[in-house]
Amino acid sequence: MTAESTFIEMMRAMASDPAARGLLDDTAVIELGDETLILTHDMMAEDVHWLHKADPADVAWKLVSVNLSDLAAKGARPLGVLLGFMLGDGDWDRRFAEGLERVLTHYAVPLLGGDTVSSRGDKRSVGLTAIGAATHRPVPARSGAQAGNLLFVTGTLGDALAGFELAEAELDGIKELSAAYNRPVARLSDGQALAPFVTAMMDISDGLLLDAGRMAAASKVEIRIDVDALPLSAAYRMMRGDGIDSRLQAASWGDDYQLLFTAPADVSLPIAATALGSVGEGSGLALFDAGVRIPLPPSLGYQHH
Amino acid sequence: MTAESTFIEMMRAMASDPAARGLLDDTAVIELGDETLILTHDMMAEDVHWLHKADPADVAWKLVSVNLSDLAAKGARPLGVLLGFMLGDGDWDRRFAEGLERVLTHYAVPLLGGDTVSSRGDKRSVGLTAIGAATHRPVPARSGAQAGNLLFVTGTLGDALAGFELAEAELDGIKELSAAYNRPVARLSDGQALAPFVTAMMDISDGLLLDAGRMAAASKVEIRIDVDALPLSAAYRMMRGDGIDSRLQAASWGDDYQLLFTAPADVSLPIAATALGSVGEGSGLALFDAGVRIPLPPSLGYQHH
Repeated sequence: MTAESTFIEMMRAMASDPAARGLLDDTAVIELGDETLILTHDMMAEDVHWLHKADPADVAWKLVSVNLSDLAAKGARPLGVLLGFMLGDGDWDRRFAEGLERVLTHYAVPLLGGDTVSSRGDKRSVGLTAIGAATHRPVPARSGAQAGNLLFVTGTLGDALAGFELAEAELDGIKELSAAYNRPVARLSDGQALAPFVTAMMDISDGLLLDAGRMAAASKVEIRIDVDALPLSAAYRMMRGDGIDSRLQAASWGDDYQLLFTAPADVSLPIAATALGSVGEGSGLALFDAGVRIPLPPSLGYQHH
Repeated sequence: MTAESTFIEMMRAMASDPAARGLLDDTAVIELGDETLILTHDMMAEDVHWLHKADPADVAWKLVSVNLSDLAAKGARPLGVLLGFMLGDGDWDRRFAEGLERVLTHYAVPLLGGDTVSSRGDKRSVGLTAIGAATHRPVPARSGAQAGNLLFVTGTLGDALAGFELAEAELDGIKELSAAYNRPVARLSDGQALAPFVTAMMDISDGLLLDAGRMAAASKVEIRIDVDALPLSAAYRMMRGDGIDSRLQAASWGDDYQLLFTAPADVSLPIAATALGSVGEGSGLALFDAGVRIPLPPSLGYQHH
């Protein structure tokens, strides 16, 4: 075991409270009085989660969106956020604050508190805690997929990958793709609409294949994905094509923040989503292209941390 | 204005929700259904909040205690914590995890979630979110002190200062003092017992004088402190004497995590606490030694960040 997996195993052993969901889900789920609280904390670090040259306003946007995306996967309505911020360069800080104001206004979510510390280090990191209240119970989990269900995803996949390639190349190219990478949007209203209909739900933060594999493991089922059913945007197809390689790359790159969910085969969904596979007895992932089983790519997604 | 105070002013402008309490209190206070949630997020950074040579288990202990101390000041019972952790050296991480397990067991508080990121930087920082439920309403605030109240503090002050001096000198000297610095204890049961009796309450994290000044400002009153009434431990007196300089130092150094509170003069308190002053009309702090007013020391406490 690596030092990192040792650390995470030690954390898991401490997280024996049912509200922690064994640290295997996106969020903590706390029953309190008549309400069910949803809590998540995600961090971002320079050179790991953002390029040094990134616009600090985009960093703020993404930090809020990735946390709210975890609430979206639970069908929660956000109550507010707490910011953990490392002070450094004044211009960077100011631009981050401007971005934070914009993103919190976009979601109509209040800043409730947090902490700022001065940094003695050469790299920054920022953290955010988001708290929400469940709008539907039981609260969707990764672990509820059942054999016979269909697998769905909201929106399109791969746009953040294409946007990252544009950012790395310092091209402004295609606005939709840059926006997908720099300013992802948490699917909060979709999550609330879907919560009563799904058997399992999670957000795709690390790549469809990696995250679907986690859902299969948590649910103790096999998840079958039709790669030719993968929803790709027109902009993505134009830039990267829609051959099998391009599709597998779109399926194994993170940062999409779409909702991946399972539902009974006869479900009538309240929002548009793409059916891209099914759930069967067994374990792990199985990929198909035009009905023919194909091998898994070497990397299924973005491996933390 | 410094870049830092500009940033904090920008945050304050975003924190217009009443639950944020204008970022002027220790915690956020969220009304939800029949319950009142208390939320806090405090960070610690290497070379700012801990010495490089510090035992990582002590860092974990302190991180949990400083956050739970904020809950204590609200009379809250803790529901759990979320950890934001920067992975680095495997031995450091393991020792931190051991310390985290010990401190969470001590308080019987579950780890509910969080995030770990790898660091590309040369210094670490760690963050913790603590969530609690109010045990008494209204929830005590800094802003409730009223003219005619008495001012009280739990425990003794200055022990963490003396413990820090021992740590800097690499002396193990006096166990109680080292423990006060390395392993402070959040006064959770005291806070819950006191909540129904107090008019204002906060924890002393940055020094009695600095924190009492904040209470005076939030409450729009003058707070008068009798420096000769300051509670000092026998170990502290033995190491640093109990003259006026020693007393003023104990009153202007942080890390004590005692509870500072005001209550009506005829109150019958449910726990032991030291009366060390009173509340009057006016503003700011006034210090007295044997009944004679004395000037404020140049530093009132530990100024973030």
